Amino acid sequence: MKVIVVNDALKQKHIELIEKTAHKVGAQLLITDSEDSIPENFKDAEVMYGFGMKTAAVSKDLKWLCAPSAGVDYLMKPDSFANKECLLTNSSGSYGVSIAEHIIAVSLMMMRRITEFHAETLRGEWGVRRAQKSLKDARVTVLGTGDIGNCFAKRAVSFEPASLVGVSRSGKSSGEFYDRVYKVSDLDSVLPFTDLLVMSLPATAETKGILSRERIGLLPEGAYVVNVGRGSAIDEDALADALDEGRLGGAALDVFVTEPLPKDSRLWKTKNLLITPHVAGNLTIDYTIDRNVEMFCEDLLNYAEGRPLKNLVDRNIGY
Amino acid sequence: MKVIVVNDALKQKHIELIEKTAHKVGAQLLITDSEDSIPENFKDAEVMYGFGMKTAAVSKDLKWLCAPSAGVDYLMKPDSFANKECLLTNSSGSYGVSIAEHIIAVSLMMMRRITEFHAETLRGEWGVRRAQKSLKDARVTVLGTGDIGNCFAKRAVSFEPASLVGVSRSGKSSGEFYDRVYKVSDLDSVLPFTDLLVMSLPATAETKGILSRERIGLLPEGAYVVNVGRGSAIDEDALADALDEGRLGGAALDVFVTEPLPKDSRLWKTKNLLITPHVAGNLTIDYTIDRNVEMFCEDLLNYAEGRPLKNLVDRNIGY
Repeated sequence: MKVIVVNDALKQKHIELIEKTAHKVGAQLLITDSEDSIPENFKDAEVMYGFGMKTAAVSKDLKWLCAPSAGVDYLMKPDSFANKECLLTNSSGSYGVSIAEHIIAVSLMMMRRITEFHAETLRGEWGVRRAQKSLKDARVTVLGTGDIGNCFAKRAVSFEPASLVGVSRSGKSSGEFYDRVYKVSDLDSVLPFTDLLVMSLPATAETKGILSRERIGLLPEGAYVVNVGRGSAIDEDALADALDEGRLGGAALDVFVTEPLPKDSRLWKTKNLLITPHVAGNLTIDYTIDRNVEMFCEDLLNYAEGRPLKNLVDRNIGY
Repeated sequence: MKVIVVNDALKQKHIELIEKTAHKVGAQLLITDSEDSIPENFKDAEVMYGFGMKTAAVSKDLKWLCAPSAGVDYLMKPDSFANKECLLTNSSGSYGVSIAEHIIAVSLMMMRRITEFHAETLRGEWGVRRAQKSLKDARVTVLGTGDIGNCFAKRAVSFEPASLVGVSRSGKSSGEFYDRVYKVSDLDSVLPFTDLLVMSLPATAETKGILSRERIGLLPEGAYVVNVGRGSAIDEDALADALDEGRLGGAALDVFVTEPLPKDSRLWKTKNLLITPHVAGNLTIDYTIDRNVEMFCEDLLNYAEGRPLKNLVDRNIGY
């Protein structure tokens, strides 16, 4: 078995773990920075750990692609895989900690208006005091209760919100910190009681445009929206309207319909919109890359032993 | 008994609670926006709830001043009180939630480099990915384990730090979330094992300059400092040197030796320094003003009944 690892964030300890695991399963291993530098004798590799778009599209020998990302929408096109039987796993479970910290940070930056204080001090101005909001006693709704939503909920509960509810496809979640978990079909009745809406959804047919203009209108005046999943989940133009009109308190977007955000996007100038360049989930954080590599190695053992893969993606739903 | 309340942040429910309590203890009550608008017949008031600097300095009739702030250093001058027997209480216990949120926000803004991403997006730039740090597995030290430190610790523990230790005058704390609480005399041995130092100390003779140039030198390379107590606790020039030299990862200061920060201060241009204009503890947050007013009313009942006041300041130590 030939295994290719394409990852430029690996440290020595990660390389050692991967080498040890490959040795254990008797695999030939290639570790490289880029899909463009795969030598001829590895073009028929059976397993790849990496984004793998180029390889998956052409290799009929690839039997398992392990993506280091949580979202795998970029691999869901009809021609993404030359081998239609190729297994696909994601790395959901490694980004929750990183992204949860980001959500807490940007939520507080908006509610406590640190975005405004920061903009002023960058200009050398001692800002004026202004009314602030708090996570304490806020009504928080988490749309998407996977690893990311659950890691956020664990942290959010320590801030003593008035309520912390989840909304998921099934109406269930493995997360233990929600007061209650609703089905997506109940979303319209949850939004009017939401001061902070946190969205961490994969890009699928079902989630596209889920935060529509109508639903944005259901949020109470002054509510906040954070999106760390995929940009396609929000009607960006409707969100920008609500922000520019001052109906919402603010929004923090780490993901966008088009990334990088185009230079001429109106979002750059939208009022009370905090933009970050898709950096919430970051492999430079020790814990994230550690978990990411560990999860691949666990599944490599599973694969070699013929056991089911833990992070297998269901292509019918897209995550 | 005449009672004056000077507070411009009160909502109707707060006024009602104060009126009800004053009625219960048979007090004549004046509620006003400013010490400058106290009518002649209230100049001999026995109790004031407000910053009270002007009144305390001249009134020989004032027997109890309840300050709405946690820090009362501005009332510690030899001529602060015309009546040397005047009791002084602070409102420590009402700001912890507000300030704890601020600490979490600015810590994550620095560690996750959202300060830099935010500065870039304000300029319309899609920032480049860069190495981030995390509260997860960080070694956190809380210098000052009163209400503010404890409220921070409660939240911080949910981020799964490697360690969370307190440092206090007594080596004890009512906070339950610390792995261990050290005495201030042990500070030098704690600093070398600190990735994030959170300072929430009152301004007293003992805390002045406590984070000296030498102690800043004890922090590991890349450490972060947050100060939400009083500016006097830090050698600002030494901190600016360490930041400009890149020895520290960053610092977030909400308090300064001189406030507002003077236009010609080098801190405005110091590298990786996040400045906020003394806004971490904010009475506009519902919970903070609610607690602040409730605490005064509780102590007003205590005062009227001749019971000890709960938030009495020990003027020998200054808090």
